Amino acid sequence: MDTASIPGRYGSAVSREDVAGVVASLRGSGPLVHCLTNVVVSQFTANVLLAVGAAPAMVHSAEEAGAMARVAGSVLVNLGTVTSVTAEAMRVAVAAAAGAGRPWVLDPVAVGPLPWRTGLAHELLDIAPPAVVRGNPSEILALDGGPGGRGVDSADAPKAALAAATALAGRYGCTVAVSGPQDVLTDGTRVVRLANGHPLLPLVTGTGCALGALVAACTAVTDDALLAATAATALLTVAAEDAASRSAGPGTFAVALIDALYALGQDRLVEAVNLR
Amino acid sequence: MDTASIPGRYGSAVSREDVAGVVASLRGSGPLVHCLTNVVVSQFTANVLLAVGAAPAMVHSAEEAGAMARVAGSVLVNLGTVTSVTAEAMRVAVAAAAGAGRPWVLDPVAVGPLPWRTGLAHELLDIAPPAVVRGNPSEILALDGGPGGRGVDSADAPKAALAAATALAGRYGCTVAVSGPQDVLTDGTRVVRLANGHPLLPLVTGTGCALGALVAACTAVTDDALLAATAATALLTVAAEDAASRSAGPGTFAVALIDALYALGQDRLVEAVNLR
Amino acid sequence: MDTASIPGRYGSAVSREDVAGVVASLRGSGPLVHCLTNVVVSQFTANVLLAVGAAPAMVHSAEEAGAMARVAGSVLVNLGTVTSVTAEAMRVAVAAAAGAGRPWVLDPVAVGPLPWRTGLAHELLDIAPPAVVRGNPSEILALDGGPGGRGVDSADAPKAALAAATALAGRYGCTVAVSGPQDVLTDGTRVVRLANGHPLLPLVTGTGCALGALVAACTAVTDDALLAATAATALLTVAAEDAASRSAGPGTFAVALIDALYALGQDRLVEAVNLR
Repeated sequence: MDTASIPGRYGSAVSREDVAGVVASLRGSGPLVHCLTNVVVSQFTANVLLAVGAAPAMVHSAEEAGAMARVAGSVLVNLGTVTSVTAEAMRVAVAAAAGAGRPWVLDPVAVGPLPWRTGLAHELLDIAPPAVVRGNPSEILALDGGPGGRGVDSADAPKAALAAATALAGRYGCTVAVSGPQDVLTDGTRVVRLANGHPLLPLVTGTGCALGALVAACTAVTDDALLAATAATALLTVAAEDAASRSAGPGTFAVALIDALYALGQDRLVEAVNLR
Repeated sequence: MDTASIPGRYGSAVSREDVAGVVASLRGSGPLVHCLTNVVVSQFTANVLLAVGAAPAMVHSAEEAGAMARVAGSVLVNLGTVTSVTAEAMRVAVAAAAGAGRPWVLDPVAVGPLPWRTGLAHELLDIAPPAVVRGNPSEILALDGGPGGRGVDSADAPKAALAAATALAGRYGCTVAVSGPQDVLTDGTRVVRLANGHPLLPLVTGTGCALGALVAACTAVTDDALLAATAATALLTVAAEDAASRSAGPGTFAVALIDALYALGQDRLVEAVNLR
Repeated sequence: MDTASIPGRYGSAVSREDVAGVVASLRGSGPLVHCLTNVVVSQFTANVLLAVGAAPAMVHSAEEAGAMARVAGSVLVNLGTVTSVTAEAMRVAVAAAAGAGRPWVLDPVAVGPLPWRTGLAHELLDIAPPAVVRGNPSEILALDGGPGGRGVDSADAPKAALAAATALAGRYGCTVAVSGPQDVLTDGTRVVRLANGHPLLPLVTGTGCALGALVAACTAVTDDALLAATAATALLTVAAEDAASRSAGPGTFAVALIDALYALGQDRLVEAVNLR
């Protein structure tokens, strides 16, 4: 098959076969993902991880975050409902992950309009560079020093955030994944665009946060963080398309999404993922 | 149509058309609702808000509650799983909302048998009067100084709580919404009764708490707090009737309720709401 | 019917009729179950309790845990996402439950690899002996002083944990329930085995934790803790079989499980429970 003859579909920095390979590794090895995430999405996040074969470990006390991070395959830090108590656990977990050579992923929920967590995000980034930062355009813009958006909503198109993502990727030597109707990911050099998904995704709380957890799970099975983030995004957004066809609204969609993630095979993923 | 000829259906203090208007404003403007709510219901609450077009922002640290409250359209304070950490955030949020002229809504979960949170509820009410207090009969009775009920359950009929609700409404210049098989709402002068809903509602955790969040969302789009609370109650209870017809038990009902809220149009609402 | 002629099915230390009797008491009396549980599973746990007729009360502040424990029918302590804040509430709740003569149940989530909570578990056990300890094999092994497993996963078969369970039961005068594909329960003298359930159960977060809550609910309606733990396990695992037949994956299964618990009658339970 002459892939070069289909422009925009086969010219991606990562191949769909590589993406399928990461998903196969995920289901094969079942990495333990240490999640320091918010209370709104923790159940949904755990169920998403279980559906793709990973093992969630939700531990967010400062007394235990280090021990958990050291035995986990990767660590997710999501700032959604952070308090001074869980912030301390995040500092401990990031330091422990770095010390043990484990990748960590930052989901900078609502960074920008809330100065305290914006400072915390920078503090965590300075403890150790993450493998991936995953956020909405407004969060990525804010993390790069821009104005940011309204709460966890995203007013800016993914495209507009590419410059900020590239700058952040260069500064921390990490991958930055910008979520939106079209997802844009970069490691500062390579750029990947994905055009899967469904309008119901942002109507279910925690789909973005669960994507952050999937990214963390994938970083536990490949050293290529851009590939990991691409595979996670493909998993969620292709599953969303499958789920939408069996949904009557956001309630049934959220349930069908777990079923779809559980059922999603490599063949379907390779066929459906729309890499650009 | 001669509305006067249908007693008990058209004599309400607010009209069904006004209710539909509030719901239209809600979907049109998508207010940001700052929720300081309990960890049991936070996912369900966020999904309920998203289903009606509002944007939930769950932030409950003292460091950030003020900043969030100032940019939100309204603030919900739900005492369900309050701790000393989140109590401080609630104090900050209520003060900030009042300072910024934003309405706030109190859901006094389990006030009565638990003295600490009963004191906290009064403390919050003294910081600034809420737009609406929404609770079960036992919670409203307890907040007015009565004995209160067993945990979050309601032993008293909504009717019995009307006197307490009227007293509270007069004391704080607010609306009080008493939930039950028949909902009773008052601003101290006007009284609204709604007779929609379904017996499965109290078998799903967080339906009452989600109603509190819907009330908060509606206070962000109308200055008439009694109308806001009525519209929110109509939304939830009419959607419950729609959902029940597609449910096999409380599990499927909870999911169908989100779909029903998402699908609920103004025509259906005007047709189905049973105002008295 | 000659029950002795069906080996392994009718030789159990508790009878299926006794199990059905506990479930009938549960639905008849609707005990208030005070849950100090983790934020990942609290919504699911509350919905499971409501589905079987119990009333969940989720209160986890040190200021209120004592007052709540004293009026509850039983207390659940689940260590899943414990922090220093909720640990203090657990100490208070266990002491208050013991003082008021209420049974309490320990779910030692992830005890073993995490030293801090392992110490906390022993501290709680020393405040007052629980009615039941419910855990995975690795957690029960770790609580008895063994090496323990990987996070909340279970690497050891229930059978291997029976010695540890018997030792713990003897030490604290309690029942120990070891969950797995085959459940094994003992009060140190009698042993019960149950062989119901479904492979989808461990793919939904919180099913084990919800079982701990069901155990607590059952201890509120019978003084025989082994019978209570058996009845709770029968409820969850038979309902899982009913739910699996109406599921397309772990998402729909979790929802159908709530419906199945709600619908599960005594006749179906007596017919389906596989006691050994």
